[in-house]
Amino acid sequence: MHYLSQKDAAALDQDLFNEYKFSVDQLMELAGLSVAAAVAKTFPPSTHNSALIICGPGNNGGDGLVAARHMTLFGYNVSVHYPKRTPKPLYENLLHQCEQFGVHILEKLPQPNELQNNYKVLVDALFGFSFKPPVREELKPALDALIEGGLPVCSVDIPSGWDVEKGPISEKSLKPALLISLSAPKQCAKREFIDTAKHFLGGRFLPPGIITKYNLKLPEYPNQDQIVEIC
Amino acid sequence: MHYLSQKDAAALDQDLFNEYKFSVDQLMELAGLSVAAAVAKTFPPSTHNSALIICGPGNNGGDGLVAARHMTLFGYNVSVHYPKRTPKPLYENLLHQCEQFGVHILEKLPQPNELQNNYKVLVDALFGFSFKPPVREELKPALDALIEGGLPVCSVDIPSGWDVEKGPISEKSLKPALLISLSAPKQCAKREFIDTAKHFLGGRFLPPGIITKYNLKLPEYPNQDQIVEIC
Repeated sequence: MHYLSQKDAAALDQDLFNEYKFSVDQLMELAGLSVAAAVAKTFPPSTHNSALIICGPGNNGGDGLVAARHMTLFGYNVSVHYPKRTPKPLYENLLHQCEQFGVHILEKLPQPNELQNNYKVLVDALFGFSFKPPVREELKPALDALIEGGLPVCSVDIPSGWDVEKGPISEKSLKPALLISLSAPKQCAKREFIDTAKHFLGGRFLPPGIITKYNLKLPEYPNQDQIVEIC
Repeated sequence: MHYLSQKDAAALDQDLFNEYKFSVDQLMELAGLSVAAAVAKTFPPSTHNSALIICGPGNNGGDGLVAARHMTLFGYNVSVHYPKRTPKPLYENLLHQCEQFGVHILEKLPQPNELQNNYKVLVDALFGFSFKPPVREELKPALDALIEGGLPVCSVDIPSGWDVEKGPISEKSLKPALLISLSAPKQCAKREFIDTAKHFLGGRFLPPGIITKYNLKLPEYPNQDQIVEIC
């Protein structure tokens, strides 16, 4: 497996938009769908019917909004906390779609006891591969809820707060139960960092030219699945 | 099962864009993905490795371009014939993506003997639910190739050339081996019209408000699948 540096992850992303002419709408839809599929595979709605998704202001948060919608279609009762909203039409539309699908939009972050009483699983769509510390003051409560919530956390692409290359930055860093790497794993997804977490790859949309250019060695997706487990 | 009239199919489509604020990019990506999944389920790449997709000038053709890309990811050798191209950025980008994924873009329609020698399955993405006869002169050869190709045909949403409500218009009409209804089946998808064809529903993206408004009774999708077989 080849693990991407932060710089290469950003360059690969730009290539998809500039050279391959993908729209953000297209790839975010496929990425969010794969996140929802990996969560449902690991924490099925039959046992973990109520999910809270915490969305950040960037593309990682957008993936979370798409995942929220697909998770309602998969049978979850879904809530979203989206404290710092992105003033772009795509994000406004994704949020509108969530509302229309019956996703509960929580203005206030639930208290710790509410978290444990009301949810079975958390989805961490707070920060992605562009993250550089420190965490902004206004997003600290959201990160703390993920770390201290006492619930299994499913991280989208990067466990929030982690160094994208060096992994957890302290003993208090988030410990996800599931990591869904998107398009290709970043360096912090190495087994030595993610420990016992389940690890899936999603975002099945890379063209062969990208796989060659970045020297990726990706596992084969089974059949028509949008996710593949990485052991 | 409730089967949509042509008018309701168009109104439902407009609702998705106007009321639910979906972009064409989003829904076409999910629709095309489900087409690719249904083709692969019915005619797997292990036995039907070479596919020709015939794309029309509208959204049906766009679904075909998306399906072409996903089918390469599923292991098919894919060719596309797209005789009347849509001069819109989304369609130009979808075609560009196909090229970058190694899809062969055929300027000329293969001759009947070439069809049988070079392909195992055809995908009919020529006309969708907006179709009204007669077939334009310039697209007749493409429709004839689907009808007379001697290969199994997978029709996207509507078997091309059919009346959207009344089904086949003559004994010479296309006889698809597989129909993939998108979002909800249209009236021509009734079993009495599609005869022995396999029938799948795809386009798993309808909000609950649409299901109520159009009185849809859709089959349940299994787990996280993007398609469901309709018996």
